[in-house]
Amino acid sequence: MILPRIGITLGDPGGIATEVTLKALSARESLPRAEYILYGSKAVIEKESRRLSLPLNFLQLNIVDLGTGSESINLGRPSLENGKASFQYFEQAFNKAKTGKLQAIVTAPISKYSWNLAGFPWSGHTEYLENFYPDAIMSFFSDKLKVALFTHHIPLKTALQKINQASLQDFFIRLHKYIIKVYGKSCNYLVAGLNPHAGETGILGAEEQQEIAPAVEFAQKKGIPISGPFPPDTIWKRVLGQSDKMVISLYHDQGLIAFKLVSFEEGVNATLGLPFIRTSPDHGTAFDITGKGMADPTSMLESIRLAYRFIQYRETEKVEGSKLKVLL
Amino acid sequence: MILPRIGITLGDPGGIATEVTLKALSARESLPRAEYILYGSKAVIEKESRRLSLPLNFLQLNIVDLGTGSESINLGRPSLENGKASFQYFEQAFNKAKTGKLQAIVTAPISKYSWNLAGFPWSGHTEYLENFYPDAIMSFFSDKLKVALFTHHIPLKTALQKINQASLQDFFIRLHKYIIKVYGKSCNYLVAGLNPHAGETGILGAEEQQEIAPAVEFAQKKGIPISGPFPPDTIWKRVLGQSDKMVISLYHDQGLIAFKLVSFEEGVNATLGLPFIRTSPDHGTAFDITGKGMADPTSMLESIRLAYRFIQYRETEKVEGSKLKVLL
Repeated sequence: MILPRIGITLGDPGGIATEVTLKALSARESLPRAEYILYGSKAVIEKESRRLSLPLNFLQLNIVDLGTGSESINLGRPSLENGKASFQYFEQAFNKAKTGKLQAIVTAPISKYSWNLAGFPWSGHTEYLENFYPDAIMSFFSDKLKVALFTHHIPLKTALQKINQASLQDFFIRLHKYIIKVYGKSCNYLVAGLNPHAGETGILGAEEQQEIAPAVEFAQKKGIPISGPFPPDTIWKRVLGQSDKMVISLYHDQGLIAFKLVSFEEGVNATLGLPFIRTSPDHGTAFDITGKGMADPTSMLESIRLAYRFIQYRETEKVEGSKLKVLL
Repeated sequence: MILPRIGITLGDPGGIATEVTLKALSARESLPRAEYILYGSKAVIEKESRRLSLPLNFLQLNIVDLGTGSESINLGRPSLENGKASFQYFEQAFNKAKTGKLQAIVTAPISKYSWNLAGFPWSGHTEYLENFYPDAIMSFFSDKLKVALFTHHIPLKTALQKINQASLQDFFIRLHKYIIKVYGKSCNYLVAGLNPHAGETGILGAEEQQEIAPAVEFAQKKGIPISGPFPPDTIWKRVLGQSDKMVISLYHDQGLIAFKLVSFEEGVNATLGLPFIRTSPDHGTAFDITGKGMADPTSMLESIRLAYRFIQYRETEKVEGSKLKVLL
């Protein structure tokens, strides 16, 4: 049996990234069987595992040592060195994934401030990946909720300008294609409205009737199991815990207010539409609690598990693929 | 001891309004001691209490009988008759409250469709009240969360256009004044940002730096305990269950996505800034479950309790009033 190869990038060495990764890996028996390759620095990993008294068997760890000296790391704050290191970890893994040598990358949190200090202008992994794959989709997964974001890191005013039937249709079709790829089957998609009460038959906003509903109808005609637009404030409660449902959120906070309230500890961020799998914990570097040993690795564990599940689902793609072609 | 006088308007007789009101009143011993005056129809109340087998002591019920015949009611759907009846219940209580004969009104849910069929153009109690009191503020209360809405039933695009320093300042000062009036003391106000990550130092939107932060600063200088803007997706988790905190939400769904997720059953809607107290359950007419006896009266009970507490707090206003004048 050939094990799936999952790269884990160790993120900003000044934050909790190393801690949550090592904690997750020290619970190895609860992780799926895969070949895990760590992209980081051996010196930083060794120092951190001693500090946390983690029973890591280094002989079993597959580390791509990018040689950051542990003395050059600035703990608890962003820095140029941290930025250089974390970008290098990610870039190395990305290059391997791009060429098919890794099936998935799980990215521990980086600091965009560190990246910027080091001269890397992207505000996150997703933004970097979007340079290469502009059709990628930001999405969030937990046992309670699945959310895909139609727009994410742009001003709300700009997000509103992007609401039009053509873009929505394109998004629905892409999302459905990606979901089948990583998930092995379709979700039941529910589209959130834009305005209070989803526009209330036009009185509280025109976008639902003019743009969103026609796009939903178009996607339905293509055979996609999609419905909406639904009132954005009540849609969440009705899908909670239903694993076949995915909410399509029209802007960043619509989806993330809900997701972060119900799935704060175990949430996973996944970039859909890449030629490989990419997942990431749904939290940041948490500089304020770095080095205290109190970081919760649940989100990192779930990110690894979801990456593994997505790899498994991809296997069924070969079967489902032909079905999909008929559909689209 | 003179008991506070609380009017309860019986809402749309075709929905669950009568059911939740009678269920709440039949648990009379768990309600605060007050003089409760029901604005509705004796025939409808009698029929509903028989149907629900509720042990209501009609001798103890103080009903202002507005004479709707129970045969003219359309159960489970909006209708002209339902609209006429529910508007009349509300208007009568409103007239009494306006002239000081009621200290509070608790409004059971109406259907805006029924109102519209009957020729009343307002989309709800709040909108009707805003005609008379344009400075009123829509707010939501539960044990877990308190939220005030800077804007509510308008298109999101219009809500964005209303974000400016002067309006925000005015809102903060009004809200603080109203909260002290109904609550007896100030809350600690946290302002949600407008854009993802509260604009991320301007990269993801300018409103935080240009309009919101200066308005918060202005209010702070006036002595109001207010802070922000905070990232809209993470602010909710950090205030949950803290009774001294109130979040100021810049648009309808920002506040209500969070509120409805954490306080669906026990949430109370309160209109602040009126010369009397007005509270209301945080749910609609629920025509789909009307007449099934399964409606949950918790939100109605909490609405009555909150109205009572606000009346009590108002008593302290006479003391706090002088302090407030110095402040503003």
